[in-house]
Amino acid sequence: MPTVGALAPVAAPSSAPAVVALGGGHGLSASLSALRHLTDRLTAVVTVADDGGSSGRLRRELGGLPPGDLRMALSALCDDSEWGRTWRDVLQHRFSSEGSLHQHATGNLLIATLWELLGDEVAGLDWVGRLLGARGRVLPMAAVPLDIVADVLGLVPGAPDELTEVRGQVAVASTTGRVANVRLLPPDPPVRPEVVEAITTADWVVLGPGSWFTSVLPHLMVPGLAQALTRTSARTCVTLNLAVQPGETDGFSAEAHLEVLAAHAPDLRVDAVLADPVAVTDVDALRSVADSMGANLLLRTVSVGDGTPRHDALRLAAAYRDVFAAGP
Amino acid sequence: MPTVGALAPVAAPSSAPAVVALGGGHGLSASLSALRHLTDRLTAVVTVADDGGSSGRLRRELGGLPPGDLRMALSALCDDSEWGRTWRDVLQHRFSSEGSLHQHATGNLLIATLWELLGDEVAGLDWVGRLLGARGRVLPMAAVPLDIVADVLGLVPGAPDELTEVRGQVAVASTTGRVANVRLLPPDPPVRPEVVEAITTADWVVLGPGSWFTSVLPHLMVPGLAQALTRTSARTCVTLNLAVQPGETDGFSAEAHLEVLAAHAPDLRVDAVLADPVAVTDVDALRSVADSMGANLLLRTVSVGDGTPRHDALRLAAAYRDVFAAGP
Repeated sequence: MPTVGALAPVAAPSSAPAVVALGGGHGLSASLSALRHLTDRLTAVVTVADDGGSSGRLRRELGGLPPGDLRMALSALCDDSEWGRTWRDVLQHRFSSEGSLHQHATGNLLIATLWELLGDEVAGLDWVGRLLGARGRVLPMAAVPLDIVADVLGLVPGAPDELTEVRGQVAVASTTGRVANVRLLPPDPPVRPEVVEAITTADWVVLGPGSWFTSVLPHLMVPGLAQALTRTSARTCVTLNLAVQPGETDGFSAEAHLEVLAAHAPDLRVDAVLADPVAVTDVDALRSVADSMGANLLLRTVSVGDGTPRHDALRLAAAYRDVFAAGP
Repeated sequence: MPTVGALAPVAAPSSAPAVVALGGGHGLSASLSALRHLTDRLTAVVTVADDGGSSGRLRRELGGLPPGDLRMALSALCDDSEWGRTWRDVLQHRFSSEGSLHQHATGNLLIATLWELLGDEVAGLDWVGRLLGARGRVLPMAAVPLDIVADVLGLVPGAPDELTEVRGQVAVASTTGRVANVRLLPPDPPVRPEVVEAITTADWVVLGPGSWFTSVLPHLMVPGLAQALTRTSARTCVTLNLAVQPGETDGFSAEAHLEVLAAHAPDLRVDAVLADPVAVTDVDALRSVADSMGANLLLRTVSVGDGTPRHDALRLAAAYRDVFAAGP
């Protein structure tokens, strides 16, 4: 029985744009939950640098890609039927016990199983997509597990300008210092051809929202992915966050997010910047940075409106519709 | 692409009998793999006394029913399409690692997840059945986990007639002594109404093959189940094993299997006994015991024929067809 919270997506018109969404974690779930209202020609390209929680344990125990962000992206695309929602809930379920299964997500174990059975990560993800009736496809940003390494300021008492190397997504995302820059290990990982193909044939690429240094910027640091992003004729939209991330982006203004992105990917062409007014302190400063990148700035209310920094899927969908309609 | 080993079952005629198969483990898988060729009005009622391996660990860590025998029964009923076979392979997959997931079966984790999500074991098993396109239904023999306790002869050096209490399915199934009798803890567990309903409305109940003391006899020791079995108008077929089980039934003749069954369930009416000639040393003795129970004895070759004690699904299906046609 459909409820107001579980409305079926509006049928995507046949002229729906092909969209590639880059990110990871809750940020990517938010963009996918919105974009699925606009198109089913939708591909998520997802971070594979997680080293914490269930994913980190699986990565260490079984040796494959960390499945957690991929699982979340698939769940965000599930078909809105009893079938799709039940299997999504199964995927997202976490065990709670005094034993070794505690906090493992069932979907992570299911994805790891398909990878072992089929010997191919994309084929395994496609099977989970079929199980969920997913509206779109979920791909890993690299064909091998990645590690994020950051140079962080402010971790050495009395030496605020000294850089400290911090390793691992969890450590970077929760550092008490200020992240100056991030890089990946290995620095030039292999990229799946399905990823390059999706970016090459896309109408729009959507980058963000999400943890800026650990879920958004990493895509730009994979050379094979960055090359596809600069070569594609697709237009690019950068979606800014609703709030700073404690630790990772404490004190970052909206325009600082854009500047650090441009610093990490100077060749990336940005056509649109989408921001919620609630997260913009100085609109003129943000517009100035967007202009300098040659991007349209669209200010739209896209949060749920209860004061928490969470996206409303329908408001965000409406904002993306405006972005896609405005063009470059 | 279908192969000779993966032929689609012959479409069951509309007059197909309603069959309930009781058992656990590989024995029940064998009977289900055969019976699915004859009917899709098929219900498996499965032991929930396993305390070893993946099931035993889940039972101790999460506290629910041991899922392993239920998973195997569901896998035996899977739809013979790429979809059904892929998800069956996922269910049957076991992790191999140096860590805590080692030897856990993915299907056990999936079933445990559905039980936690839905709060109802039968509903959870029905969802896995839907995933597999299962031809039939799989139910637990009791609504709570069970423990098997056996009195075993020959474990005390120099005292061959002394009984030793052995606890747990693994310990009983692998004892080096001779099992004199088994009982269950708790002795009178609750039985799901779906189980009683299936037995009450069945045309045939099939008991065995399987580990005699730990997968076949336990059903007769659950009072609510035994009562349904003695009250139903369904006819009952006992299928004997192809070989004795090291430890559990070492030295047991075919007729001894029947006698120990009659001793554990004196009120059970047996209409047919199905045995492979390869497993019968003294046909006259077996026929005499079958006669004394009022049962027809059917001798049919049902093994794969390579010398290993494994059932051939099509030969066993043909034998059950003869059993059902012969009637009481």
